[in-house]
Amino acid sequence: MTNPSRAPSTRTTVRTRPERGVYDFRIIEAILDEGLICHVGFVADGQPFAIPTIYARRGRKVVIHGAVGSRMLRAARSGAPLCITVTLPDGLVLARSAFHHSVNYRSVVILGTASEVRNRAQKLAALKALVEHVMPGRWREIRQPSEGELKATTVLAVPISEASAKMRFGPPVDRADDYRRKVWAGEIPLRLATSTPKADPKLLPGIALPNHVKAYIRARSEPDSATSRVDDPARQ
Amino acid sequence: MTNPSRAPSTRTTVRTRPERGVYDFRIIEAILDEGLICHVGFVADGQPFAIPTIYARRGRKVVIHGAVGSRMLRAARSGAPLCITVTLPDGLVLARSAFHHSVNYRSVVILGTASEVRNRAQKLAALKALVEHVMPGRWREIRQPSEGELKATTVLAVPISEASAKMRFGPPVDRADDYRRKVWAGEIPLRLATSTPKADPKLLPGIALPNHVKAYIRARSEPDSATSRVDDPARQ
Repeated sequence: MTNPSRAPSTRTTVRTRPERGVYDFRIIEAILDEGLICHVGFVADGQPFAIPTIYARRGRKVVIHGAVGSRMLRAARSGAPLCITVTLPDGLVLARSAFHHSVNYRSVVILGTASEVRNRAQKLAALKALVEHVMPGRWREIRQPSEGELKATTVLAVPISEASAKMRFGPPVDRADDYRRKVWAGEIPLRLATSTPKADPKLLPGIALPNHVKAYIRARSEPDSATSRVDDPARQ
Repeated sequence: MTNPSRAPSTRTTVRTRPERGVYDFRIIEAILDEGLICHVGFVADGQPFAIPTIYARRGRKVVIHGAVGSRMLRAARSGAPLCITVTLPDGLVLARSAFHHSVNYRSVVILGTASEVRNRAQKLAALKALVEHVMPGRWREIRQPSEGELKATTVLAVPISEASAKMRFGPPVDRADDYRRKVWAGEIPLRLATSTPKADPKLLPGIALPNHVKAYIRARSEPDSATSRVDDPARQ
């Protein structure tokens, strides 16, 4: 298939199923903005870890944060190579054969090193971005960080420069002679859904559910099938 | 808090917020069985990666699979250390301060090395486990792998021995003097939800939606708040 964008490095070139690789920043940005958590890949004492955490995109950087002493942030802060991965499972792809079962998904992999955000204004802006990434409209409602809270928090930024997206869309792609099989095939769409908000039992009486909570939905964009086509047998 | 289980190694001891760590196999098992995808942490040419993939639990092992040439499976097959992480985001925790915002989640981290499953019967059983993990009841409906498909697929098994779970449940835990603030606080539950199945446009006429698809729900267990309590300020 035609894929107009180019990988920024050989390390971020999608090698298994290269037709699923996309390097366009607008697509990477949309996936990052829709995701809730990332997994941070790092090495500590020779052991790789993949640890989930909240993140936010600020322009062409991803910011993460955590307690000052955490293993992940200590490894990341030392300038060690990192991998930040965001994965959106979009659907189960049920084929007529086991082999062609698959998952529809969008994912972004960012390779790089982190720099610590020490400047007070920048640090606050990053923490605001983290809160607003999770829930737009929340920051202005809540108490902002105290000096002690700021000191207890490490904020790191990783540039979105060596990055790639990988996606699969659409129905199963079966072996030609399997299409005559009398087995149901198709897709079961998946999404990270919210249920009814539960008020804190300690909530003061008379506080109504604010609009930013009422209107909250996690998924912000529909997968755009125009940006990617699967035209060969598809397997996870 | 009391935590009766013990970590199997110092590397799997939950260090940031140790009260959230659980090492009981039944809890690890329940999280693994509910999850859909894992992220595999591995190192290739000195660079850590965290790559999403489907997995399944078979007893006290996790199996993963993929194309023979994939970077992840080549690294894993060489006996290099791996990290397999499964994360279930259960809810957004909206506190009265930015600092105490959090996420309710259950996660499992498994450290270890993989061995390749070469025995034909074991390999088929692992592939069956992968399909049935994604959708119970599916395997018997579909065409099973051909010899060529088996050869094109690498299956790896990682023992669930050096493993830990980490969880957070419940409402926000705010700073004492923040409880009088007039801001809505609580939890927004999250789950990986399915929508209406979409039939493959190439589906033969007259094939009804099978029961294993109709009855499909992704989440299998409700978080059991009895197994974990958060009794200190909670932050992601």
